[in-house]
Amino acid sequence: MSGSIGSLSSAESLDLDDSGVKRRFVTKHRENLDRIQQDCANGAPTRHSVHDPSKRELDEYSASAYGGPEHWFEKHKQTVLNACKKRSCEDWAESIFPMYEWLKQYNWKTTLLADVIAGLTVGIMIIPQSMSYAKLAGLPVEFGLYSSLVPVYAYAVFGTSRQLAVGPVALISLLLNTGLTLVLENDGKTPENTPNYEEIYGNLAIQTSFLVGICYILMGVFRLGFVTILLSHAVVSGFTSAAAIIIGMTQLKYLFGYSIPSDKSLHKMLVNIFRDIGQFNYKTFLLGSSCVAFLLGMKTLAKKYPKFKYARALAPLIVTVFTIVLQATIDLEARGIPIVGNIPKGLPRFTGGIAVDIDSVGQLAVVILSIVIVGFMESIAIAKQLAGKHNYEIDSSKELVGLGVANMCGGLFGGYPLTGSFSRSAVNNEAGAKSGVSGIVTATLVMIVVLFLTPVFELLSFPTLASIVISGVVSLVDYEEAIYLWKVHKFDFGVWMVAFLGTLFLGVELGLGLAVCLSLLLVIFESAYPHTAILGRLPGTTQYRNIKNYRQAELYDGILVVRVDAPIYFANAQNIRDKVRKYEQRAGKNKKIQYIIIEFSAVAHVDTSALHVLHEMHKTYHKRNIRLCITNPNAKVMQRLQQSGLTDEITLDQIFVSTHDALIHCLNEMDGDEVSRHPTDYNDKDQDDETSELVSSPDVPPVTSSSDDGFGDNDDVEAGVAKATGFA
Amino acid sequence: MSGSIGSLSSAESLDLDDSGVKRRFVTKHRENLDRIQQDCANGAPTRHSVHDPSKRELDEYSASAYGGPEHWFEKHKQTVLNACKKRSCEDWAESIFPMYEWLKQYNWKTTLLADVIAGLTVGIMIIPQSMSYAKLAGLPVEFGLYSSLVPVYAYAVFGTSRQLAVGPVALISLLLNTGLTLVLENDGKTPENTPNYEEIYGNLAIQTSFLVGICYILMGVFRLGFVTILLSHAVVSGFTSAAAIIIGMTQLKYLFGYSIPSDKSLHKMLVNIFRDIGQFNYKTFLLGSSCVAFLLGMKTLAKKYPKFKYARALAPLIVTVFTIVLQATIDLEARGIPIVGNIPKGLPRFTGGIAVDIDSVGQLAVVILSIVIVGFMESIAIAKQLAGKHNYEIDSSKELVGLGVANMCGGLFGGYPLTGSFSRSAVNNEAGAKSGVSGIVTATLVMIVVLFLTPVFELLSFPTLASIVISGVVSLVDYEEAIYLWKVHKFDFGVWMVAFLGTLFLGVELGLGLAVCLSLLLVIFESAYPHTAILGRLPGTTQYRNIKNYRQAELYDGILVVRVDAPIYFANAQNIRDKVRKYEQRAGKNKKIQYIIIEFSAVAHVDTSALHVLHEMHKTYHKRNIRLCITNPNAKVMQRLQQSGLTDEITLDQIFVSTHDALIHCLNEMDGDEVSRHPTDYNDKDQDDETSELVSSPDVPPVTSSSDDGFGDNDDVEAGVAKATGFA
Repeated sequence: MSGSIGSLSSAESLDLDDSGVKRRFVTKHRENLDRIQQDCANGAPTRHSVHDPSKRELDEYSASAYGGPEHWFEKHKQTVLNACKKRSCEDWAESIFPMYEWLKQYNWKTTLLADVIAGLTVGIMIIPQSMSYAKLAGLPVEFGLYSSLVPVYAYAVFGTSRQLAVGPVALISLLLNTGLTLVLENDGKTPENTPNYEEIYGNLAIQTSFLVGICYILMGVFRLGFVTILLSHAVVSGFTSAAAIIIGMTQLKYLFGYSIPSDKSLHKMLVNIFRDIGQFNYKTFLLGSSCVAFLLGMKTLAKKYPKFKYARALAPLIVTVFTIVLQATIDLEARGIPIVGNIPKGLPRFTGGIAVDIDSVGQLAVVILSIVIVGFMESIAIAKQLAGKHNYEIDSSKELVGLGVANMCGGLFGGYPLTGSFSRSAVNNEAGAKSGVSGIVTATLVMIVVLFLTPVFELLSFPTLASIVISGVVSLVDYEEAIYLWKVHKFDFGVWMVAFLGTLFLGVELGLGLAVCLSLLLVIFESAYPHTAILGRLPGTTQYRNIKNYRQAELYDGILVVRVDAPIYFANAQNIRDKVRKYEQRAGKNKKIQYIIIEFSAVAHVDTSALHVLHEMHKTYHKRNIRLCITNPNAKVMQRLQQSGLTDEITLDQIFVSTHDALIHCLNEMDGDEVSRHPTDYNDKDQDDETSELVSSPDVPPVTSSSDDGFGDNDDVEAGVAKATGFA
Repeated sequence: MSGSIGSLSSAESLDLDDSGVKRRFVTKHRENLDRIQQDCANGAPTRHSVHDPSKRELDEYSASAYGGPEHWFEKHKQTVLNACKKRSCEDWAESIFPMYEWLKQYNWKTTLLADVIAGLTVGIMIIPQSMSYAKLAGLPVEFGLYSSLVPVYAYAVFGTSRQLAVGPVALISLLLNTGLTLVLENDGKTPENTPNYEEIYGNLAIQTSFLVGICYILMGVFRLGFVTILLSHAVVSGFTSAAAIIIGMTQLKYLFGYSIPSDKSLHKMLVNIFRDIGQFNYKTFLLGSSCVAFLLGMKTLAKKYPKFKYARALAPLIVTVFTIVLQATIDLEARGIPIVGNIPKGLPRFTGGIAVDIDSVGQLAVVILSIVIVGFMESIAIAKQLAGKHNYEIDSSKELVGLGVANMCGGLFGGYPLTGSFSRSAVNNEAGAKSGVSGIVTATLVMIVVLFLTPVFELLSFPTLASIVISGVVSLVDYEEAIYLWKVHKFDFGVWMVAFLGTLFLGVELGLGLAVCLSLLLVIFESAYPHTAILGRLPGTTQYRNIKNYRQAELYDGILVVRVDAPIYFANAQNIRDKVRKYEQRAGKNKKIQYIIIEFSAVAHVDTSALHVLHEMHKTYHKRNIRLCITNPNAKVMQRLQQSGLTDEITLDQIFVSTHDALIHCLNEMDGDEVSRHPTDYNDKDQDDETSELVSSPDVPPVTSSSDDGFGDNDDVEAGVAKATGFA
């Protein structure tokens, strides 16, 4: 029966004598009820095995199904409790030294060789790279070498990843440089007006490394590894692309051969570059650009042909040796190409005294925060990817502790902040690294260099170092991702552009901060308009489905079933209230809604704003003699409802474990109510609007019309419902 | 059959001869398939009417079901397009002047009287209040009166609420005061060093009002009314509680009778108060505190006894008249109680010249932003509540325009920023206001005052004004809410405390900003651990349910069905990947998983981070010969999958409209695969692990054990699956 026919037939029924109207009406709900019961008896009804909140709460597994900060808190508490229980020495060793895990099953015959090869490969890569990145960070080259020494040993012992190659990386070096320069600038210190600027700067770098380490360890202890979820793919890609460009720009001064004051925004750096372009030194440019070309060529080669896979790792060493030989033979320095000069020989001294002698942590807070978040994100991403390939687990918290100890050792032994390197980790993995032994080999190679080979590396020229940095960051400019985002998701593209342009023109910290805020705001707005659906009963079942998707789903007059498909919280609570109201008004055009059943099964959690809105809804609807039923709330939501006193207001009788139970209850109530009401009010004209049809045709539009007579003045209906509420 | 028996029987089957093992295995999947088909034939299978994305996309209604920024964009575009279509004069009048809507159906006989009474009631309330709030804002009292004049007329014409009483309010006055003081301080201007400080300050207030108005209008035009969703109930409650305390503190100087320099943080204000406590003036205190006591007494009376409902509105007028009479008779001023003095007579002059003569919008940005958000939130909350009571709709965008015009008129006619007032709107509604006529009456009363009665109000003493402010904000200190939050939701309590303490000790803007950020971060963390579930088939149906809730649900060996109950985006994508991996590993202990079916019906949207993770999952699983199937993605998600190229990778054959279809497909595939494989490999020992039982008992734990033989080395299985993937 289509909607229009439905309203016709109810119009016809108006012509019946009063008793006919009544008879028809009285039996309607009873019919519905009977039919439901028959359906279920004839067909194969779905047995409802509903969950029992109190039992479920005890279920450790289901606890993990609920998320959020409270979950995190519980998890953390559990971990601490577990740690306090008696454990064997082995357990302790394993939890403190993740190294123990791979060491106990280490196969000295088969994997040692692979580890040594991988370690040496990374070693010959890290020596020139670490010196380059130290220069990028505004530090003497030995800082890079020292960061690749003790910290790498430390990570081998405390780190959880077996393929991750830690050490200085470009992004962190840039963050350190811009951050510390700003800190000193705010202090009124510039290289010009401060004679010992370099020393102060170096000490700050050591302190930053130490504090970053402590920060990581604390985050590990308090299981705060999840902070990286704040960084969306678009933010990271846009940020690293822009940072790569800025890094490239900072290196141009070595290629062009004249001093270019660095600045945090691109346009000012371009001005600085072109202002003194007259001092352009073609010799440094020739050397630098040919090194860049060679390095990029080798990289491409290694990518294209697997048999040249060592080319990528060897290339930096080749250009290094090449320019050292050049310097030794034709004396580049005398020809106007600056060289490194004066690298202190021997092991790094203990800098613990400097590391802990911190004036103000507040000053360093921004630089520490940015290094901690960006560094950990870079490291954990590659560590997880490599772990996935080799089928072992990375525990974010332990990994944080590992990185923390490494950074702390950096601070204690003359290094600067470090993290896992994308490029070296990839090389390490490709070269066959199987355990931390590879890292130990790498660090040992670096140790040999600082002990015996510093006089050789003193001959290295700056354009060569710059070329290593530039070739390292070129591939980070991820314009392909931008094109992809534009095609797939315009708003993510917007976030990418904000991260990219913000980082380029406002500086790395501000650009990153802005993009993170924007992406979080978009999440909030995205979640502010949750999906809701009017549900209808699938004929012959106890299943309730979205009437948009299931046209055959049946609606019952006077009862509205709404499902909310999202957690209810402050950003969407009012929207949900408005939607329910709209549904109710639309459905109420045909027949006054007496029961609104809200299905809560997809509501993972509610906050107090939601509780206030529910309270308000209950009050408003109660005044209009509409009863609110809640079905299938989970344990957590149920607890909140009880604590807030909402269960007392709505009454527990109106909270059901299944929508079907709620519907049967409502039909029963309406049935009893109407039957008890009508005999006293036999000739009431207002009954007209009660003679509507059950909507059960598959062809009708979602909410079918029956008679559309007004109901606003029908006091009897309200009185009747008020009585019904007394029932419940 | 219970889990232990299941594993026993499969262990027994190991003792069978090879052919027995094989026979049993070959027929297993076939049996499953047959049984499913039988189940559906015998029982009453649920007909699946699945949605068709392309058709659904056209469905205007379903568009509104999807949320987020794109939805907002679409909606806005639609509104603009609609506005550009030809419309009748009436439509135009209605959209520009919301007044038209109530005017055309205004009943001059019945509602005019009620409106006049309500308007007069609000009028006698607004005259003393507006002067008090102007003092609170650091402005001469006439600013308050002017803000209650032209802007109130303007709101009556352009506003959509019929009961909202706009005008100066305490919160906005405080925000203006702290904001402008800071702006001038940053400019190096203090009342001491700047002779025309008051004039500059007044001009800034006028400019702020004008800019706030423009801001509101722009937000209305671009439909940005949703910004208020950023403010959770806990944030608002904590913030207003602290602001009320600060407002009270600023008024103490009038009660105590000596100058107390205001400061943005509580502890410094307390220091300021007690430093000069020796100058305490008992006369001002006596007058002020007795006024406060009287006002609060009348308020309580009005609340307790409905017949005294006008007491609340009359009380401010009573204390005003009382102190004016006192001044006129016993000359309070001569006795050391300061009076207002010198209110310019006549209508406000046109201040358009001042309003547009703005030096730098940037300086005022923070104060404008805070006033716009807090002001609109306060106004829309009460407007919606009143509209709900009187059953009409409030359009946020139109309301923004209405408030915007009112504020702009404030700037043009010597006023300062205003918004809807909680207390006066409540009184307006209680007094029976039915339309904007009430506002017109109020404004007319104010006009009469500024034209003829200013000499009278010049006699008003400051302690009286302060007492009106204090009695107005006392009820805003919402400590009950804090207790409620502590009981119901600890994290919301934390947000409340941050808002409260932050506002008290760090200043209103910073406190509010911090609390908003914290509440948003909590949302992100809450959503970062979404609910996921392993689904099993309800016996005899095509329904799939969480095996935690439905113990009778059946699992099929080698197939894992996972439902994700949240939108997938950057904050939770990795968590979801890890969870699926964990499920797969746990299920894989018994029998190698060959198909992972992910149900997307509850995934409202995906972002590009999610697409990257899905891509990575597909790649990883593909390498391990596990196929990923996606079921029931909505139109929006499907579009993203297609644009990102994921549909080509996974292949469209692996994307299904229902989980049941996917399962049948997988069983078919496995069946064909295994049958084709085994004849060539008759005596393969590795088949042992394929002899597991179908898990169908209601008593078994979620993932039952069968044989737990390794499968890692079974190359044939992998080869077979590789072949199967060729099929798909």
